[in-house]
This record gives sequence, C-alpha cells and structure tokens, in this order.
Amino acid sequence: MRDVAVVGIGLNDRWGELWEVSLRDLVVQAALAAIKDAGVDHVDSMYVGCMSSGLFTGQEHLGALMADYLGQAPVPATRVESACASGGVAVRQGFIEVAGGLADIVLVAGVEKMTDVTGDRATYALGTAADEEWEAFNGATFPGLYAMMAVAHMARYGTTCEQMACVAVKNHENAMKNPVAQYHDRITVAGVLDSVMVADPLHILDCSPITDGAAALILTTPELAKKLKRPDVRIIGTGQASDTIALHSREDLTALDAVTRSAGAAYNMANKKPRDIDLCEVHDCFTIAEIMVTEALGLVEKGKGGPAVAAGETAPGGRIPVNVSGGLKAKGHPVGATGVAQVAEIVAQLRQSAGDRQIEKARLGLAQTMGGTGASSVVHILEAK
Amino acid sequence: MRDVAVVGIGLNDRWGELWEVSLRDLVVQAALAAIKDAGVDHVDSMYVGCMSSGLFTGQEHLGALMADYLGQAPVPATRVESACASGGVAVRQGFIEVAGGLADIVLVAGVEKMTDVTGDRATYALGTAADEEWEAFNGATFPGLYAMMAVAHMARYGTTCEQMACVAVKNHENAMKNPVAQYHDRITVAGVLDSVMVADPLHILDCSPITDGAAALILTTPELAKKLKRPDVRIIGTGQASDTIALHSREDLTALDAVTRSAGAAYNMANKKPRDIDLCEVHDCFTIAEIMVTEALGLVEKGKGGPAVAAGETAPGGRIPVNVSGGLKAKGHPVGATGVAQVAEIVAQLRQSAGDRQIEKARLGLAQTMGGTGASSVVHILEAK
Repeated sequence: MRDVAVVGIGLNDRWGELWEVSLRDLVVQAALAAIKDAGVDHVDSMYVGCMSSGLFTGQEHLGALMADYLGQAPVPATRVESACASGGVAVRQGFIEVAGGLADIVLVAGVEKMTDVTGDRATYALGTAADEEWEAFNGATFPGLYAMMAVAHMARYGTTCEQMACVAVKNHENAMKNPVAQYHDRITVAGVLDSVMVADPLHILDCSPITDGAAALILTTPELAKKLKRPDVRIIGTGQASDTIALHSREDLTALDAVTRSAGAAYNMANKKPRDIDLCEVHDCFTIAEIMVTEALGLVEKGKGGPAVAAGETAPGGRIPVNVSGGLKAKGHPVGATGVAQVAEIVAQLRQSAGDRQIEKARLGLAQTMGGTGASSVVHILEAK
Repeated sequence: MRDVAVVGIGLNDRWGELWEVSLRDLVVQAALAAIKDAGVDHVDSMYVGCMSSGLFTGQEHLGALMADYLGQAPVPATRVESACASGGVAVRQGFIEVAGGLADIVLVAGVEKMTDVTGDRATYALGTAADEEWEAFNGATFPGLYAMMAVAHMARYGTTCEQMACVAVKNHENAMKNPVAQYHDRITVAGVLDSVMVADPLHILDCSPITDGAAALILTTPELAKKLKRPDVRIIGTGQASDTIALHSREDLTALDAVTRSAGAAYNMANKKPRDIDLCEVHDCFTIAEIMVTEALGLVEKGKGGPAVAAGETAPGGRIPVNVSGGLKAKGHPVGATGVAQVAEIVAQLRQSAGDRQIEKARLGLAQTMGGTGASSVVHILEAK
C-alpha cells in the first residue's frame, strides 16, 4: 500500500440555509476550492458522499452530475452513501484508490442540500438512516432515538442535562471563530436548558441543525504532494465498522461499538494510541453523541464524557480539543459534507493554518463520523510529517 | 495490483413484482447464495449498489442494513450509487479493494425494491438519474429521453422500429431459459410494434420493466480462489467513465461516449480487443440502448447495431451473443442489482454452468452497465483461466 497525502481542502463559502445556491453549485464551489488549494491540473477519479439527494432534491446520479458540472467528464465519478457517515466513507474510498495504486489524484467531495424541502420532509429523509421497518415506520425520529441513548447514559453514569448543554455551549463558542459556520452566536447552559424540548431530555439546542453545505479534498501520494509543494499532511490510519441498524438490537444503549471498532482499526493502522491525538473532530449530531463518541474513541474514560466536557477538557485549551470547527452542532450538519469537512478542518490545523481556531503544535488529528445511531462509523487519523 | 477472481455468485430466487419479499430480504437472499457458492466463512468488506432506496422504500444506510441482516456487523459496508450503473460501480469498488490489497474477500451486492410505490412515483424515482434542473423538473422521463436518442439514431443511420423490436424479441427468447427472469413469454416483432406507445418511437415492449431483485458476488484473490476450490474466473479489466448528465449537452445524440471510454479502459487493462469477446451482457434499458451500446463497445460497426440484431448476430448462436440472460428487458431491471447480475451471468457462462443458456466455449465475457442516458458507464471484462 502507498502512503496517502491530503494536498487540497475546500468548503463552499458559508454553511447554512442557502436558498440561492443549488446542490450542484455547492459541490462545485467546494471542489474548485480544493482543486485550487492543491494546485492540480487534473484528477484521475472522484467520489462524492451524499446521504439522500433523491429525497432532498430529486437528484441521484451525483457522481456524473459533479463530473459534468466541474467540466471533468469523462473522469470516473462515484457517489457513496452511509447515511450521516457518507462523507467519511467518501474519504475512505479515495484513500483506498490512492493507497491501492489505482489512481494518483482523487477528488473527494461531500454535499447535502437539505433546506429545499418543508420541515417534516427533512425529518423523514433523515429518518431513512434508521431501520425503516422497525424504527422509522413506527414513528421513531432521530431526536427520539438519541434521547433514548441519552436517558440510558444518564441512568447508568449520572450524566446530566447540564453536561450535555456544555457540549453545545463549547461548540457554539468554537464556531464564533469559523467563518464558514452556520451559527455565530454564543449560547449558555441556561439557554440550552431553557430552549424548547424536542425529545426529552434533548432540547432544540442539543440538536445539530438542517444545513446546506459542501466540502472537498484532494488526495494523492506524498511524492506528488512534494512536487505540488503542498504541506505534507497524511492520512495514516483509516477504519470503518458497522453495527445493528436498529437501536433495539444493541446489547448496550450507552456504547457505540462501531465507533470503538472503527477507531481501533485506525489507531492500529496508524500505530497510535488515543493519548497521542492532539485534537479531533467528532460526530456531535446531538450533544449526547459527542459525549458517547469521546468515550468510544478512548479519549475519556467510559462514563466520564459528561464531566470531561463540563470541566473544559475538550475545549480548545483543554487536554484534548474536540470539534474546534464548531462541530455539527454549530458549524452545521449538511449530512454528506460533514465527514469530508471534518478531515478538511484537521488538515488545516495540522498545516497550522486554522487562523483564530489554531490549536498550538497540533501534529496528530482524528476525524470520526457515524451514520444513524452509530450503525456505521468511519475514523481517519492524520499526521503532519 | 493483485489479480481478482470471482468465486461466488448469487441472485434471489426470482425477479419480478415481489410483494412478499422486502428490500432487506432480497439483498440477504442474494448475498447468502453468493457466500454459499463461494464457500467462504467470512468477508472482510462489503459493497452494495442501489440507486434510490430512499425514494423507493424510505430506507437509506443500506450498507449497515445489509451487514446487520447478514449477521456480519462489524464488517465495513458501503452503499454506492451511480443511478442505473450502481451495480457496476459496486463491482468496481470491490475490485479496487481486492486489487489494491486492502481486503482479501469482498462481498459485492446490488439491490432495488421498486414495486412498493405507485406507478408515477417509480417514474419519478427513475427520473432522478437525469439532470433534475434541466430535464426531470421540466417533465422529461426516461422513455422520453431514450426516444430522442432513438429518433436521432433512426434519422442518421436508418435504424428501424422493427430492428429495435428484434432486441426485445431476442431478449425475451433468451429469458425463456433463465429461471430467475421476470418474463417467461415469447413475443414477436409484430407484437412489439402493436404494443402501446410510451414515447414515440418506443413502445411499452421496447422498455425494460420495473423489478424487485438482488444479486451478489464474492471477490477474492486467485490464491484464495484456489484454496476454496472454485473455478478460476477473473476480472481482468475494469473501466468507468462519465459524460454530461443532460442529453442536450451531448455533441452527438447517437453516441454513448462514456460507454466507449469505459470499454476502452477495460479493453486496455485486459489487453483484449472487441473481437476477442465471446459474449456480453449490456444495458438494454430500452431496445435502442442495446443497439447503441453494441456499437459503442466496438462489437458492431457504428450505425449497424440495428441490422446486426435483425440478422441474428447478437443471438445465442450468432457472432457475438448479447444478453443471453434475457437482459434488462426480460430478465428484469432492479436498477442497483443489474450491474452485479450481469457479472454473475458472465461468471456462470465462463464456468460453463449456465445450463440451457450456456454459450459453447465461452472463455471471455464483458459486462456493461450505464446510468441515466449514459452519463456514467462501467465495463468489466472477465476471463476463465
């Protein structure tokens, strides 16, 4: 296997409710930004992660659409989907193609255009990440499913609503320094607890938003990265795992087995341990998710995710900064784009080019994204060489 | 790059309107058949090709669903989509992972459950393969788009409705020998021409049907194939290409550039020429498509696809048998399954185990599938070693 470097990163200008930008415009803007950043004059292959463009916009066949509107046809272009982990899977497919020697320069993009449907249709579309026959058909929604996980975590470990609110407060604070982020407003723990209840114990400010956005990367070999005179940031570990799609089949509602296993595979490939990681971007679709993921990744002790965030351990100045970008909660969560944007943030940090958000001396970063209630998870570990 | 062998093939028992079999049942049935055929006791990774399970069944996240219902979690499982070429893309991703050395045994599946929606919703879902903003939104449907290509081909090359009807007659005749096929009824040229007009000049019997179905393969290395004592059938060439997603952007409505380019890449990798091919399975979503594809693959001269089928050149006893399985037209077209089932048919033929359908001395076969009006195309060339 060959080593794989990330030589280009790009996001569309601003994430949010973008009525003036179409699905194709979003992905093209991000892809052009990544191509420009990399300085490549062609790509050999493309992947685009997208969860549900059919339901959100009536457009499937996104690979061909992207190749066409980038002016890159006849380059092979494939869309991958793993619900909310679609972007992470796209990064992994790009990695596999470069590492395996089948392509030298691969464009990896992620996109979701979610605001062109009325509210209940977005909830329906997101529900297709759950088990349709056993969960969604019977009325379960994602806030409801994560609320069950939160209740279980609170019952077993004493996690509190205040600790969950701390995740939202931290990530909104982080997003203040991210020009792309959907939200630029500080919130307080009291404000979160006072916001409307969506699914007890999750308030609206415990939930990531509906977002339009796109992100893109250029992957290549370290040799070509050197020729392109780009900073040498490499993907040194990748891991992917699956779990039961329905929550009721899990042995333990407080654990995310696919996250632990995908992280294990990535740590193993990278020959690194959780304590080596300088910062990470994780899948905080709900505040309880960030708490459970930090535990599943081995960054904090099992059951201690709540106290850790409340103590500031996961804040930018803390022991292990989590979601410096603002995370899904405040940067926004255009589903298919999220996993790609996480890697873009880690690359910016490892290049020491993250501006006001820069974590000092960041050398090793981790990106984790998951689908549904954790039925799929993808982890990448990146290192500045 | 490592060589890649196909050691297992499987389809669910029967393709058609299967009200008693769910999406997950379909893919599990096909996958178990392939696993049994291969005799493997585990898989390292999975891909599933599916075009639009969100619109057809309200279920995305198919990779996780498949891993879960196969009892294979935590194995990595990814869904890929390229409209009607989704199955072909799944085969290619499996090939890339084995060839690149990232996995030794990969399950590749394809599935579509299309009949759980009312008729106009199926047409809407299939329309998401076209350019939503310029074609589908304005009322273009796939029969309409292919009708335009047919009219152009008729105008330039003198192709006739009778010649197009010959494709349907041949493929229905072939399907008589395929127990899995949706249709087991002989039709005549007069019958096709007398059937209801869908989009002039395409009659209903020029169109492939709406189908529920699934197919699966097990890919591995030749070394493991030998240990498993399976016939040594290898994928010796793969090619994928893209083209403009909208038909109006093409320079020539009578050409399928992505088919020609994907075939060129596959011929090149395999070091074979069109005249070396013993049989092929191609994407006859409409009768005109088979005619245009046989030309684009270089199997017949440009503009001569119509006369070739009328002369029996592409029949089982002819110069180059095309769609011996019955093709999309008569075997059925469960969109995501089609590209995987094509490869399964070629493997059965190269194993000399295709029963009544067996083409004598078949050693080299080609499978081609495309998305939309040819905005994406994937070609695989297989050889019996």
